[in-house]
Amino acid sequence: MKLATVKNGRPDGQLVVVSSDRLRTVSASRIAPTLQAALDDWTEASPALAALADQLNAGEIAGQMFDPATCLAPLPRAFQWIDGAGYLSHLERVRTLKGSKDAELQSARPLMYQGGSDSLSAPMSPIAVTDDALAVDFEAEIAAIVGPVPMGADRATASAAIRLLTVCNDVSLRRLVLDDLQNGFGFFHAKPSTAFAPLVVTTDEFDDAWRDNRLHLRVQSVINDSLFGQPNAGVDMHFDFADLIVEAARTRDLGTGTIIGSGTVSNRHDEGLPTKKGGIGFACIAEARTVEKLKYGRARTPFLKAGDRIRIAALDSDGTPVFGEIDQIVTVRTPKAHG
Amino acid sequence: MKLATVKNGRPDGQLVVVSSDRLRTVSASRIAPTLQAALDDWTEASPALAALADQLNAGEIAGQMFDPATCLAPLPRAFQWIDGAGYLSHLERVRTLKGSKDAELQSARPLMYQGGSDSLSAPMSPIAVTDDALAVDFEAEIAAIVGPVPMGADRATASAAIRLLTVCNDVSLRRLVLDDLQNGFGFFHAKPSTAFAPLVVTTDEFDDAWRDNRLHLRVQSVINDSLFGQPNAGVDMHFDFADLIVEAARTRDLGTGTIIGSGTVSNRHDEGLPTKKGGIGFACIAEARTVEKLKYGRARTPFLKAGDRIRIAALDSDGTPVFGEIDQIVTVRTPKAHG
Repeated sequence: MKLATVKNGRPDGQLVVVSSDRLRTVSASRIAPTLQAALDDWTEASPALAALADQLNAGEIAGQMFDPATCLAPLPRAFQWIDGAGYLSHLERVRTLKGSKDAELQSARPLMYQGGSDSLSAPMSPIAVTDDALAVDFEAEIAAIVGPVPMGADRATASAAIRLLTVCNDVSLRRLVLDDLQNGFGFFHAKPSTAFAPLVVTTDEFDDAWRDNRLHLRVQSVINDSLFGQPNAGVDMHFDFADLIVEAARTRDLGTGTIIGSGTVSNRHDEGLPTKKGGIGFACIAEARTVEKLKYGRARTPFLKAGDRIRIAALDSDGTPVFGEIDQIVTVRTPKAHG
Repeated sequence: MKLATVKNGRPDGQLVVVSSDRLRTVSASRIAPTLQAALDDWTEASPALAALADQLNAGEIAGQMFDPATCLAPLPRAFQWIDGAGYLSHLERVRTLKGSKDAELQSARPLMYQGGSDSLSAPMSPIAVTDDALAVDFEAEIAAIVGPVPMGADRATASAAIRLLTVCNDVSLRRLVLDDLQNGFGFFHAKPSTAFAPLVVTTDEFDDAWRDNRLHLRVQSVINDSLFGQPNAGVDMHFDFADLIVEAARTRDLGTGTIIGSGTVSNRHDEGLPTKKGGIGFACIAEARTVEKLKYGRARTPFLKAGDRIRIAALDSDGTPVFGEIDQIVTVRTPKAHG
């Protein structure tokens, strides 16, 4: 089934069920007021939501037109957002940090950071920054929302805990990354609010595209109407979602509704082929710039500036955006003066 | 007023008001079911909760006996837990990371890390670890819970956003710290669930002890019935809570209910005086060990092992624990085998 959270004037929004064809929606408030509430009572809520989805899909309930512009992030604020690094080619391309670990250790256990989860951005919300000279970048990722995971969980437990999938934009301020990492306390200022697609979808909706704890779909990123990248999230994912969850739960329980990101989707490929000729491209600007530096001696692709638009979607074999679309415009928001 | 969250079988518990003498309590469910709900509607909820507290204190409501053993963390799961580093002497004593920044930069802007907030520990819950050879340490800190803070907020806005204060134990697995920091992505595995005192208290309850955005109270830590440290949280706090909040909001909004930690309370002092002779001691074991190494050539104080008990409280001038007490025992929890 497909779920979304729509605006209702409250911080956590209202849970709705969305039809298979993404055209209609019906309130799920009689089952659970919010997505977090549904996850908290998943054993009861999940079959009830599935039954409601069946009714909507069968036309037994008329529902309303689904308008992604009314959506908040599926969890507009979550109790945890962890971002893993599943794709090693992303790390290899962007990692310039001095004193970083050797490659062997990186490929033995996934890196991950604790992200801010108090305000996750709606799919069509602006990317608000104080200054667009901070090297604003996007990072297209697959995200899994899990049920409770006990400390020390094994792969089978981790995999079974996956409740929902979606796609997200882990916005990064590249100019602040090095500072965050060098101070040793990790990502903080370089990682403002992550944005999420309108829909979260149960794994059973994907047939064969969800297998081996990976989502085998193309993730398309479009900057200002130009295709920027279309790597496949199922390809070159060195650490799958079970690996990422096991690692996250090494020393602690993970609470219900924890969101885990795959890391920037990244395929190993002939980096020369332009996307307009069917090339794979990249799911963030930093990777493109690193490749350009090596190839041309300088980075050509600029970071995002005020007014730039970034759209991200995971596409099925028909080119349908299975989670709907992230569609954001960079906006400079000057802090208000205070008395 | 004083608030607490008691167990009711739900993940977020139930909000209660506690009397000034900490002896009686009354449910606040007719005002707000949970502390997060009260914070979300603070303008309405705060005066209603204060009126209920007045009735309880005046004996107009009998209430029930307050039992800290029934308490969860005030926010059993929060949307954000940020830990700052307000006390430079803590950093100076424990910092052994190679390649760390110079002291100048550390004192210009506070360091902070994004902590896990999905499961915050009850005041009397065990410190659950998979292995007590991980060098289990406590860190006694003051924590502030804030209302919404806009990106780029100034000090006045930051200070005005502080809603509640409490004390917490930022449990650390020292054996994993270096690994977390060296991989560059920051604290993760080294920081399992942080524990909180039973009570959160509004700043107006402190009279003169809350001033200059600092809480001028002794924070007492007791290991296995021996006084370990009693530094004053108002002394040597280089970055006050306004500084920490301003820094946290540099590139993003902070959501309502964000918890910000002061960092391990740490006073500059004659480190030789034992606590039994009125010495200040330390609010974590790592600082004591560093000082011992310098003085005696080796660390003498062991880290916490299974069965060890750590109690933490902030004391007013009468020695009363103003937030109640954190009282935890280290417990090894072996992961269950899964099929």
